[in-house]
Amino acid sequence: MAHSRIITLTTDFGTQDGFVGAMKGVILSVNPKALIVDITHEIEAHDVYSAAFTLRNSCRSFPKGTIHLAVVDPGVGSRRKPMLLHTERYFFLGPDNGVFSFVVEEGEKVNAFELTESKYFLTPPSHTFHGRDIFGPVAGYLSLGIDPGEFGPELHDCVKISLPSPIVSKSKIEGQIIHIDRFGNLITNIDAVSVDALRTRGDVRIDVGSITLKNIAHSYSEVDEGSPLALMGSSGFLEIAVNRGNAHEKLGLKRGDRIRMELMS
Amino acid sequence: MAHSRIITLTTDFGTQDGFVGAMKGVILSVNPKALIVDITHEIEAHDVYSAAFTLRNSCRSFPKGTIHLAVVDPGVGSRRKPMLLHTERYFFLGPDNGVFSFVVEEGEKVNAFELTESKYFLTPPSHTFHGRDIFGPVAGYLSLGIDPGEFGPELHDCVKISLPSPIVSKSKIEGQIIHIDRFGNLITNIDAVSVDALRTRGDVRIDVGSITLKNIAHSYSEVDEGSPLALMGSSGFLEIAVNRGNAHEKLGLKRGDRIRMELMS
Amino acid sequence: MAHSRIITLTTDFGTQDGFVGAMKGVILSVNPKALIVDITHEIEAHDVYSAAFTLRNSCRSFPKGTIHLAVVDPGVGSRRKPMLLHTERYFFLGPDNGVFSFVVEEGEKVNAFELTESKYFLTPPSHTFHGRDIFGPVAGYLSLGIDPGEFGPELHDCVKISLPSPIVSKSKIEGQIIHIDRFGNLITNIDAVSVDALRTRGDVRIDVGSITLKNIAHSYSEVDEGSPLALMGSSGFLEIAVNRGNAHEKLGLKRGDRIRMELMS
Repeated sequence: MAHSRIITLTTDFGTQDGFVGAMKGVILSVNPKALIVDITHEIEAHDVYSAAFTLRNSCRSFPKGTIHLAVVDPGVGSRRKPMLLHTERYFFLGPDNGVFSFVVEEGEKVNAFELTESKYFLTPPSHTFHGRDIFGPVAGYLSLGIDPGEFGPELHDCVKISLPSPIVSKSKIEGQIIHIDRFGNLITNIDAVSVDALRTRGDVRIDVGSITLKNIAHSYSEVDEGSPLALMGSSGFLEIAVNRGNAHEKLGLKRGDRIRMELMS
Repeated sequence: MAHSRIITLTTDFGTQDGFVGAMKGVILSVNPKALIVDITHEIEAHDVYSAAFTLRNSCRSFPKGTIHLAVVDPGVGSRRKPMLLHTERYFFLGPDNGVFSFVVEEGEKVNAFELTESKYFLTPPSHTFHGRDIFGPVAGYLSLGIDPGEFGPELHDCVKISLPSPIVSKSKIEGQIIHIDRFGNLITNIDAVSVDALRTRGDVRIDVGSITLKNIAHSYSEVDEGSPLALMGSSGFLEIAVNRGNAHEKLGLKRGDRIRMELMS
Repeated sequence: MAHSRIITLTTDFGTQDGFVGAMKGVILSVNPKALIVDITHEIEAHDVYSAAFTLRNSCRSFPKGTIHLAVVDPGVGSRRKPMLLHTERYFFLGPDNGVFSFVVEEGEKVNAFELTESKYFLTPPSHTFHGRDIFGPVAGYLSLGIDPGEFGPELHDCVKISLPSPIVSKSKIEGQIIHIDRFGNLITNIDAVSVDALRTRGDVRIDVGSITLKNIAHSYSEVDEGSPLALMGSSGFLEIAVNRGNAHEKLGLKRGDRIRMELMS
């Protein structure tokens, strides 16, 4: 796979300090032709799970060869390893703490490398800002075409986190809310494949919080303004939304709350 | 008009989810040489009016041929049409919901097209994220030089929203506050032409909330720190500000509040 | 020094209005090949000191020749001068109000110029938005290779602000908290040189607020989760942090609070 000059950034650095700027400066010092794209810097501080979920939803839209850098790194400076993951489509750079748990497609070939070759780091790297001192410059060198194996030895065992799995039976799916987006849409862990399988057996009803929905809509506007609905969202999961409103505020539901979809009897 | 490789983005997507990143990934997948510039992603959710006003204030600073993409789209997936507007200076891409109401100059020639040619879309497009699935890729193709007429048939009737007009007479102008910026400056709908016309007839006074101003200043520092003033703002409208302070907080005024400028007797 | 096509932006414009977009549009109208990098637009309104500190921490990561634009400009339109600072490594563009006080290295040669040549401005410049009308276009021309001396006469006396100095004696250092970052880390004005000098004389203890620390850690994870620690931060100053937590919230400390490091007796 050819490398790309595109480098994306997903961090919990926020945008009020100069952290992101410093990291971009280092990347551009190594490769002035790098094309840096922000995915987000607003991951809640230290929330590795949210970073992993956000990266899953956006990384696949980028061209083959893109270098995805993710720095949500509460263990910076400890023994957690700085890592390069090389999949069939992309490069991923960040701490080995689970942040890349959702980016590998089923059956996709993956190579992982620990970043140990300090000639590709700022010297000496700080113990608190590896985004600037390790991941940034390595991203720059990678975008110049340095081979993944040059940065350090292969890693054979990476840290994984997992999405809570829905419980699927012949007549129902029990899931939960795993993410709330900026519009207040409630994203669940109930995937399209499970939903389609259940719906081939009959009409379904959905119970979540105090409401029951008897339909899966195609778009928000199929219900009246201010009314709740369920639909398959752009991330590939079932979502609960309110047409032109905020489901999170209106329904009082939060991350972790249960949702059940079952065949109507 | 030659197309440009510059694509600007104005959305209500926020920056904490990966929506903006996904959209940029799609654009760069179509045209890796596109130059993407964020105008803002902090439009309040579903606030088409604010998006239209923000776009008006910033789009004109860009070079001829720039592609302006605006996705504030509460009706996504409904019958509202995805649209391409082609003016003498720019291309505008977004939903036909009024978001481009303030970008056409008086007398400027405009062609509008409905986006129907699905070969330029991600397939199949989702019903909830046309920024990624329709507007993003079309922006990419447009920046590659595809002719506007290739994307679909001409549209002869677009949705328009309007700014509230001030009431102008020989001796006074009655207007209102239409926008509050991040500094707390209160932007009114009273335009420079009306103000100049009134001032040729004599000295004016301005009444807004509980204060009266007897002058139009040239810069904030013409009054003492913490004092209110009126001046012609960078958007071309009369603004009420507080020198080194926040007029919105200090004066307790909000969007929709009345302002009157009249000749002093 | 050769100019670069990289232009960084540090402002208090926020990201919800179109101010940043308009400024970028103007820069790209002058030089479509400019590479614009946001450092931050979230400086608190009118807070020149924070802008100066943020710029100090991030500007040095950029390649030689980078043009750093900083517009935190409460005196816009008054007699404060628009300025270009030319150091051995960088160009700095912004108001002469102290915002560049911390960017010049000790002993570095500096030339300053007042921006007076209006052919490089938007005409006529507004009195309230010099970022768009003066600094933006001048940055564009500078990135095209226009000589610094072309923009106006040399300036021999610039406004300076200073960081509060720590009080250093043989047995102790008395400093204060000068910045709080998005993670809640408390950055002090106690620099590495002073700390190293004191530590060559013996073990130290640190008193801040109600806590005492008897060690300077190398990384956050050297203490238990939720425990406070002191370490030398990525900005080169002593920081007080909480491992995987927020020191600002947990310890109830704020900007200006005192900190003392002294030899243990």
